Amino acid sequence: MADSTTTTPPLTRASVIAAHELIKPYIHRTPVLTNTTLNKLASSARSEEELAGTRWRGREQPGVDGSKVREEGEKEDGRRQKGGAKPVMRLWFKCENLQRIGAFKVRGAFHAVERLKMDREWVDGGGLERGVLTHSSGNHAQAVALAAKENNMPAYIIMPEISAPPKIAGTKGYGAHVIFSGSTAPEREATAHKVLAETGATFIPPYDHPNIILGQGTMGLEFQEQVVQLMAEKAGSGNADRSNSNSNHDNKNTAKGLDVIMTPCGGGGMLSGVALSCEGTGITVFGSEPSHQGADDCKRGFEAGQRVESVSSLTIADGLRTPVGKLPWSVIYERRLVKQVFNVTEEEITAALRLVLERMKLVVEPSAVVPLAVALFNEDFREMVEREAGDDGWDIGLVFSGGNVALENLAKMFG
Amino acid sequence: MADSTTTTPPLTRASVIAAHELIKPYIHRTPVLTNTTLNKLASSARSEEELAGTRWRGREQPGVDGSKVREEGEKEDGRRQKGGAKPVMRLWFKCENLQRIGAFKVRGAFHAVERLKMDREWVDGGGLERGVLTHSSGNHAQAVALAAKENNMPAYIIMPEISAPPKIAGTKGYGAHVIFSGSTAPEREATAHKVLAETGATFIPPYDHPNIILGQGTMGLEFQEQVVQLMAEKAGSGNADRSNSNSNHDNKNTAKGLDVIMTPCGGGGMLSGVALSCEGTGITVFGSEPSHQGADDCKRGFEAGQRVESVSSLTIADGLRTPVGKLPWSVIYERRLVKQVFNVTEEEITAALRLVLERMKLVVEPSAVVPLAVALFNEDFREMVEREAGDDGWDIGLVFSGGNVALENLAKMFG
Repeated sequence: MADSTTTTPPLTRASVIAAHELIKPYIHRTPVLTNTTLNKLASSARSEEELAGTRWRGREQPGVDGSKVREEGEKEDGRRQKGGAKPVMRLWFKCENLQRIGAFKVRGAFHAVERLKMDREWVDGGGLERGVLTHSSGNHAQAVALAAKENNMPAYIIMPEISAPPKIAGTKGYGAHVIFSGSTAPEREATAHKVLAETGATFIPPYDHPNIILGQGTMGLEFQEQVVQLMAEKAGSGNADRSNSNSNHDNKNTAKGLDVIMTPCGGGGMLSGVALSCEGTGITVFGSEPSHQGADDCKRGFEAGQRVESVSSLTIADGLRTPVGKLPWSVIYERRLVKQVFNVTEEEITAALRLVLERMKLVVEPSAVVPLAVALFNEDFREMVEREAGDDGWDIGLVFSGGNVALENLAKMFG
Repeated sequence: MADSTTTTPPLTRASVIAAHELIKPYIHRTPVLTNTTLNKLASSARSEEELAGTRWRGREQPGVDGSKVREEGEKEDGRRQKGGAKPVMRLWFKCENLQRIGAFKVRGAFHAVERLKMDREWVDGGGLERGVLTHSSGNHAQAVALAAKENNMPAYIIMPEISAPPKIAGTKGYGAHVIFSGSTAPEREATAHKVLAETGATFIPPYDHPNIILGQGTMGLEFQEQVVQLMAEKAGSGNADRSNSNSNHDNKNTAKGLDVIMTPCGGGGMLSGVALSCEGTGITVFGSEPSHQGADDCKRGFEAGQRVESVSSLTIADGLRTPVGKLPWSVIYERRLVKQVFNVTEEEITAALRLVLERMKLVVEPSAVVPLAVALFNEDFREMVEREAGDDGWDIGLVFSGGNVALENLAKMFG
């Protein structure tokens, strides 16, 4: 499908920084939050009873020293209970559910449009007047619609006829032309080609494009800066130890910052962009996916050494039903900028969603809590943190990618 | 009931500032958020059709110049449609739903405890060891429990036997001793007296006490500072007009800040505290209440010139079922630090709640959206803003007081 790749910077951290400068005026610097209750929960071992009903039942934990199985005797000293791993985690949440349109997708969309505007040939050829086009029934549709609107460009959004009415209304609400297509990929592409031919609009793909990847990566930069700043402020305020010495300024640039960032992974635009934003910083990047009906294609690709090219899953994490794109894969896997990918079940996603709604008072979509579900419930991940981070633990950044979920659906899940 | 009033500072803005210094290490500086969609909605007139099904139906709006009724002819110039008022509002939200324990109440509780610790006689008399007591089935219970826990003091919380199990579990979760009583005020007080006599604990009232009022008022100080800072940042970033001139620093201290703050009003601790925090700043303070079954006691008291001393309402805004306390009333009404109080219906509260969940992605309790419901739906308030703020409009600070609502209840409201 036609798109503009004339002005695509290289996939580097420096390009992510440049992207951030371009889109800053259009996006929110979303807040980073922490939660004591979730830190406590994440840093407690789950009991044998809690694990009994899960895929982790009967699991023998290796000891911290790597020895295979805990001995009966070890259970009595209180340190080596049978049951789940006991990592030390301090969790930091980047709240992209509070981003414009309710999701991180505006970062990539605004960056793509800014880059088009820098392409003299495109502008002189009437690109602005002809506008942009995408196909999506989700957050990317609204992101492109908003970016076009704020640049007084027309936007054409191809949506399946079966899309939920609020999503259609939402996209139209940003002034976009909504064009309906069938639900299959060939039907959708046929419609897109037709509209592209008629309008001369420029296609803005949802994830498999350097400008989208670099745009989404800007969130990683903010996350890194904000955690350093919050750590410094906390150190400065003396916190609950009441020392109250006002040493904010001394600490400002010495805080350690994040050890890890974990994002959800659907098409991989965000995961690869954030990985680029972390290159050379010492921060380890992980991905996370739903396991339901094979939606964990990135994880499976890692294990097979080859990208999985198609997925057909109806996981409740509806933003993560897509297979990882070719370009994201090259960053995530081929360049080894993501260390590992973990998966979670539908039940683990639902439990994490409840915790965020109840404890953090944030409305998030199921896709957004997949990294938290990994941190709380995936014993492979938890064991790895226990082993590698030891008693010091890790500061782990988790991305809440979006908050676009219908109240009626939440009501169904928790009613 | 016995309490400690030996160390209560005067009810002034300076005392609120001093309170803030004391409690800063224990509380979150909660974020202030804005929302373009809600600003647009608040600044649009509701049509005659929208008003038709409400208590505002058939209302004749006075013109901006104060003339009584719009003439038929005026409808045609497009400026004077029949229908609702058309104020210009820029809304700023102080997110105390993201505060510790999910509500502003920790501010007052920690301040009360800090003041006790400054009372030499109380400390020497074994106050810390004997602990604190309160009666509440809501956010104040958890706030006192947390403040006691972090000071290694015992906390005794009197709760009605009929309290919801999650609230009981929540309070116990902070390590408090929960003691059950009957549901009526005399039963509750009898139990409290008994426990006070047995334990020698110190009573921490929910709102009718200077230290509680001053503690809650600290939120107003943060709100004022944060909006000035956000306005300066916005001016500095050039925002969507792409001027991109980096003039942050020039603007830092010249931003105008808020014109208005509006808070919910139950017992009045928060409203009176915030009013004190605004004294002498030029910010006008308003209160807001549910009208259901007479829960708008403060509004009625304003109109009658006398405090309403008892209320029996089952409004969904369950934090606002209490009548305004004597001391809060003296600040709110007798000292005229609150200009006016507005009310809203249950339907208006529900509509505002849906907007916050869907558009702002925040979980808030019904009580928390009462100020927003006034801004969006109370035509008395909206007309007043249209008239007094004119085309420049007002920057209006609304307090989201808390987010403690059971998912099951939300599911019932929106399922």
